[in-house]
Amino acid sequence: MAGNSFGKMFTLTTFGESHGEALGGIIDGCPAGIEVDFEQIQFELNRRKPGQSAIVTQRKEPDNVQFLSGIFEGKTTGSPIGFILPNTNQKSNDYEHLATAFRPSHADFTYEKKYGHRDYRGGGRSSARETASRVVGGALAKQIIKDVEINAFVSSVGSVFLEKPYQELDFSKIETNPVRCPDEETAQKMEELIRTVRKDGDTIGGTITCVIKNVPVGWGEPVFDKLHAQLGKAMLSINAVKGFEFGSGFCGAQMRGSEHNDIFLSDGSTKTNLSGGIQGGISNGMDIYFRVAFKPVATIMQPQITIDQNGNEIVLEGKGRHDPCVVPRAVPIVEAMAALVLVDFYFLQNSYQK
Amino acid sequence: MAGNSFGKMFTLTTFGESHGEALGGIIDGCPAGIEVDFEQIQFELNRRKPGQSAIVTQRKEPDNVQFLSGIFEGKTTGSPIGFILPNTNQKSNDYEHLATAFRPSHADFTYEKKYGHRDYRGGGRSSARETASRVVGGALAKQIIKDVEINAFVSSVGSVFLEKPYQELDFSKIETNPVRCPDEETAQKMEELIRTVRKDGDTIGGTITCVIKNVPVGWGEPVFDKLHAQLGKAMLSINAVKGFEFGSGFCGAQMRGSEHNDIFLSDGSTKTNLSGGIQGGISNGMDIYFRVAFKPVATIMQPQITIDQNGNEIVLEGKGRHDPCVVPRAVPIVEAMAALVLVDFYFLQNSYQK
Amino acid sequence: MAGNSFGKMFTLTTFGESHGEALGGIIDGCPAGIEVDFEQIQFELNRRKPGQSAIVTQRKEPDNVQFLSGIFEGKTTGSPIGFILPNTNQKSNDYEHLATAFRPSHADFTYEKKYGHRDYRGGGRSSARETASRVVGGALAKQIIKDVEINAFVSSVGSVFLEKPYQELDFSKIETNPVRCPDEETAQKMEELIRTVRKDGDTIGGTITCVIKNVPVGWGEPVFDKLHAQLGKAMLSINAVKGFEFGSGFCGAQMRGSEHNDIFLSDGSTKTNLSGGIQGGISNGMDIYFRVAFKPVATIMQPQITIDQNGNEIVLEGKGRHDPCVVPRAVPIVEAMAALVLVDFYFLQNSYQK
Amino acid sequence: MAGNSFGKMFTLTTFGESHGEALGGIIDGCPAGIEVDFEQIQFELNRRKPGQSAIVTQRKEPDNVQFLSGIFEGKTTGSPIGFILPNTNQKSNDYEHLATAFRPSHADFTYEKKYGHRDYRGGGRSSARETASRVVGGALAKQIIKDVEINAFVSSVGSVFLEKPYQELDFSKIETNPVRCPDEETAQKMEELIRTVRKDGDTIGGTITCVIKNVPVGWGEPVFDKLHAQLGKAMLSINAVKGFEFGSGFCGAQMRGSEHNDIFLSDGSTKTNLSGGIQGGISNGMDIYFRVAFKPVATIMQPQITIDQNGNEIVLEGKGRHDPCVVPRAVPIVEAMAALVLVDFYFLQNSYQK
Repeated sequence: MAGNSFGKMFTLTTFGESHGEALGGIIDGCPAGIEVDFEQIQFELNRRKPGQSAIVTQRKEPDNVQFLSGIFEGKTTGSPIGFILPNTNQKSNDYEHLATAFRPSHADFTYEKKYGHRDYRGGGRSSARETASRVVGGALAKQIIKDVEINAFVSSVGSVFLEKPYQELDFSKIETNPVRCPDEETAQKMEELIRTVRKDGDTIGGTITCVIKNVPVGWGEPVFDKLHAQLGKAMLSINAVKGFEFGSGFCGAQMRGSEHNDIFLSDGSTKTNLSGGIQGGISNGMDIYFRVAFKPVATIMQPQITIDQNGNEIVLEGKGRHDPCVVPRAVPIVEAMAALVLVDFYFLQNSYQK
Repeated sequence: MAGNSFGKMFTLTTFGESHGEALGGIIDGCPAGIEVDFEQIQFELNRRKPGQSAIVTQRKEPDNVQFLSGIFEGKTTGSPIGFILPNTNQKSNDYEHLATAFRPSHADFTYEKKYGHRDYRGGGRSSARETASRVVGGALAKQIIKDVEINAFVSSVGSVFLEKPYQELDFSKIETNPVRCPDEETAQKMEELIRTVRKDGDTIGGTITCVIKNVPVGWGEPVFDKLHAQLGKAMLSINAVKGFEFGSGFCGAQMRGSEHNDIFLSDGSTKTNLSGGIQGGISNGMDIYFRVAFKPVATIMQPQITIDQNGNEIVLEGKGRHDPCVVPRAVPIVEAMAALVLVDFYFLQNSYQK
Repeated sequence: MAGNSFGKMFTLTTFGESHGEALGGIIDGCPAGIEVDFEQIQFELNRRKPGQSAIVTQRKEPDNVQFLSGIFEGKTTGSPIGFILPNTNQKSNDYEHLATAFRPSHADFTYEKKYGHRDYRGGGRSSARETASRVVGGALAKQIIKDVEINAFVSSVGSVFLEKPYQELDFSKIETNPVRCPDEETAQKMEELIRTVRKDGDTIGGTITCVIKNVPVGWGEPVFDKLHAQLGKAMLSINAVKGFEFGSGFCGAQMRGSEHNDIFLSDGSTKTNLSGGIQGGISNGMDIYFRVAFKPVATIMQPQITIDQNGNEIVLEGKGRHDPCVVPRAVPIVEAMAALVLVDFYFLQNSYQK
Repeated sequence: MAGNSFGKMFTLTTFGESHGEALGGIIDGCPAGIEVDFEQIQFELNRRKPGQSAIVTQRKEPDNVQFLSGIFEGKTTGSPIGFILPNTNQKSNDYEHLATAFRPSHADFTYEKKYGHRDYRGGGRSSARETASRVVGGALAKQIIKDVEINAFVSSVGSVFLEKPYQELDFSKIETNPVRCPDEETAQKMEELIRTVRKDGDTIGGTITCVIKNVPVGWGEPVFDKLHAQLGKAMLSINAVKGFEFGSGFCGAQMRGSEHNDIFLSDGSTKTNLSGGIQGGISNGMDIYFRVAFKPVATIMQPQITIDQNGNEIVLEGKGRHDPCVVPRAVPIVEAMAALVLVDFYFLQNSYQK
């Protein structure tokens, strides 16, 4: 496959462009008999959708998912689950001036060179709109591994960092503010920064931290499909992501073994958890946590000099309705991708049990 | 597969434990007619092998590769290439005291819980010795995409950082010092730090930077198999890796769009390269560069309190011959994994050409 | 994946049940720039659709395909092609009496036991209605490998056999009669047999022969993915198929080597072609031909004694609108699956060219 | 991968040429804790090996398997199992006259055209010697699904058919004669035919029937990975196979639905079993049985006119030590491939259980 499928056991294949007829996907490998919580799926989609708050893009897309197969009388049948998200708010006119332009730090140039023929409207397939399908798949995955708790939140916007260790945070606060940062004071600072940046016609990067609790010991497949390697790939496949670290991460690279080693307690848990819940690519029963870096959105509301497909210099005026900062809306996407990774390893681990 | 294969078109499957009969692998998907440079493969293995310098483990392993198939009269035949690296220096006695112990921040605990039955000698399958097979595969991959230049080097040891931008470095200096840092002054500081740490019976983490030149525009497969997502997975699958960032990485998450965007020149290249040579998951013709974080080696030459498999507290004395810092020997592994990722996308990109 | 994807390079993933909202699929790996001939796709769908002639089921399903992505301004973009075939003629009431019944030689029993919860309407996922999505994928595949000529036709119905060797047939006659047998005299006998069988409320099996011309030398991947092994799997995955043979097939098993060997001519072609165009799993440039056996449709218009899901004996009355013989409508399905196999090997073979 | 791997969960990847250093493979996905019965593996290899009786090739190959990893203290560890079968009886000189010749109905021509550079000695990778690695994988697979009974036997040689239904056969008789036909009288006729054919310097085809008992209901994955589709692919991937049919097979294509339908008994079993133990691609608990057609061995001990790689006509004299009939030695290969298919579906089916 050319890269539009994720997962080996519970496989999500997605399709759809920003301004095409519809987005959608097929989930293959979902066992039969799962009672589908449709509201929870729509809730996750709503967390991702445009127009949800004052600090995100004001485009209006209802992002209502329609399931076409694989679910009968409210329960999965074990057959592939086809679904679509019709595109209803396509203002393609907004993009006609982009038919031949290469926007800086967008994928226009590389898609043009790789494919020759591309749907330029809203970025086409390279648009983050594609991630709506991932949220559908991830929401269903969460319903299979119900005991696993996945909580992602915004841990920095620009240089405003959430300094508290995650253990001191109340994850129920994540949805109480538009930034999705569980610390109210920091959330306010982040929100202010985003408003300032937007006023400047600019954008700003940020990071998301994800904490996963209750993963049993044993998930993950050495040596190439290590749990953190799949998590890393999953996160790096999200639009705008530039980095991934888990446990001690890049800080760990500055430490000595004597301070970095996690000492065991008699029950097999560890005093510290610099390992981030994973040893040798396999979950060890401790919390899994990782951090994901997002670059600033490339579309800014300032004139930029760039080129068209003939190499002519042109000036690009920022148009349309865009996010000044992507991380608040990326929180459910990070969770969705984490859920897809975990459910896959869950089924793999299951398979070896007699 | 349970995780021991890497790559879709050019697939490396590896086997082998630290103290078993042999390591080895199968390379499937190598085209016919490639004249194999056996010396170059052995050269790469020698860069990884123990005992090569004063600052790495003093174990002696010749790591001579034997090819068993797929090569005839010095050239590949298109058939799978089987190879083995016999283990010749197995001092299994060194490890008998570990049969029931769980070493801190090693994979003993997770392997025991996942598999129930494990080869505890030298970490068994979880040992970084497995990466020798990756070096073989990567060395062959390099011979296929000859125009692509892959240069990895040590960019930090503990808090000693190589501060210069990579553009100012002379990559031909990488092999002139045992640390594999192309800046001599910094290399010396790193070496001193490693010697100090070893004297303390301790270990230290570090980072490796990898710069890849001459990748044509168009490699990488949106949306899940983005070039950087595969690179990230590849790097995170290497033992002891805790983080991956490319281009602006985690720093980019603090920037504004107006400063982060790479402005195009008329030839399609960009003034800056915060994108790290990849846009939308596809190479854009600029240098690809990324950074990989390695934690400190978990085996230290100090007594540590830990538990055995019955949960009893035991004291572990550091024994054997181990690396005080893993990054000098990890440089060829990073390059090998990068080559495996690239060759795969090369063949995929080829396949769509008529 | 749980079995709903076919192909490695050009991958078709399908979804949909007989009486659900819609059937559909995703084609991943189609290169950009292919001018899509929508009429030809619909033409192939029409060859498969119900109600097309007097000797097939009289259900009415327009089977109009809607493309949702991956095609822009009439040409493929290299992005995944999502499509749906809405179900418009669902008479679910016809099937309520089957909610708890296990029809003989249908998949009701095995689906119930494997999945526990199933969409019993019209056989749900096990219905041959799923093959409409395959025809879409196959029709597009044909447009990529335009030089390859794939012609399938009915070579037997019950004991009425088309005795002529395929070299003596005029493939342009295939579509001139409802049976899709290119020999008019035989076609008439077949049609009569089908009418008789239907009058009896019964059904009848048959075979389809497929002849593929202009496949270049070199397609197919030893040793497990031999060209004929993939063709065999593809055909056996079609509903009601019981057997596959290529070249000399089962007859070849009775022959001696001295009569079976295909002697080379100086241009590399062979005097005879008992090999069926494939040697060692690789196409040799000669015609590829194979034969596929279809069992009689299991739904008959006669009362049958069977059991319900509690093991109680019940009498099943034949109801609904069903095919007395499946082979006329299976001809485009055989071609579609052949095209999917071939296009996959085409891209694989491409990938190794420099 | 280029076609040298089989299976999704329990994956066998093989390497090796007829006259190279060694054959071998990697089994990935074998769970930990399986007590390996090495003698049984060697027993299966001995059933396949040359020189075992008067009616097979008189080459001497010990075919002793050496395991290099994945097994510790006699039990599997869950790590990949690498193994080799050293080639000890390579008489490469026998083949030098074949360096530029294309033997009729061998893969010399297609390998040359596909790969350009090939190991011509003994057919290289296209030699059936590769199947020794399959027997190793299959023998281990059998040890995992112990309750499943797989019995293959020779059901025809040329026109000598074993006419009895399999239910009347005593499978314990299979190994009592060199032909591997459980009916002594028929076995004797087959043996005589093979001796006659060999005396003529000729070869003869045959069929193998395989009966599988005790597969639980539920194995197999619709719609593309139907149990019989995978079995078909597995069998067709074996050297010299020309056809596959299961249950009623090609005979079923001549039958009416009213006679072909398998009527249920109250326990869910069926009175007849024309379905061959599979409905809708899923095992139904009844015996699975299928038949595989093998063409006559292409190497005959008679002079044949053929061409060399320049298109010049040459005369080929039969040399070396070859099988007059391949089916007696192919029996363990058929069983091995069946076991590999079944164990894969077993793990897949397991994975969905909670």
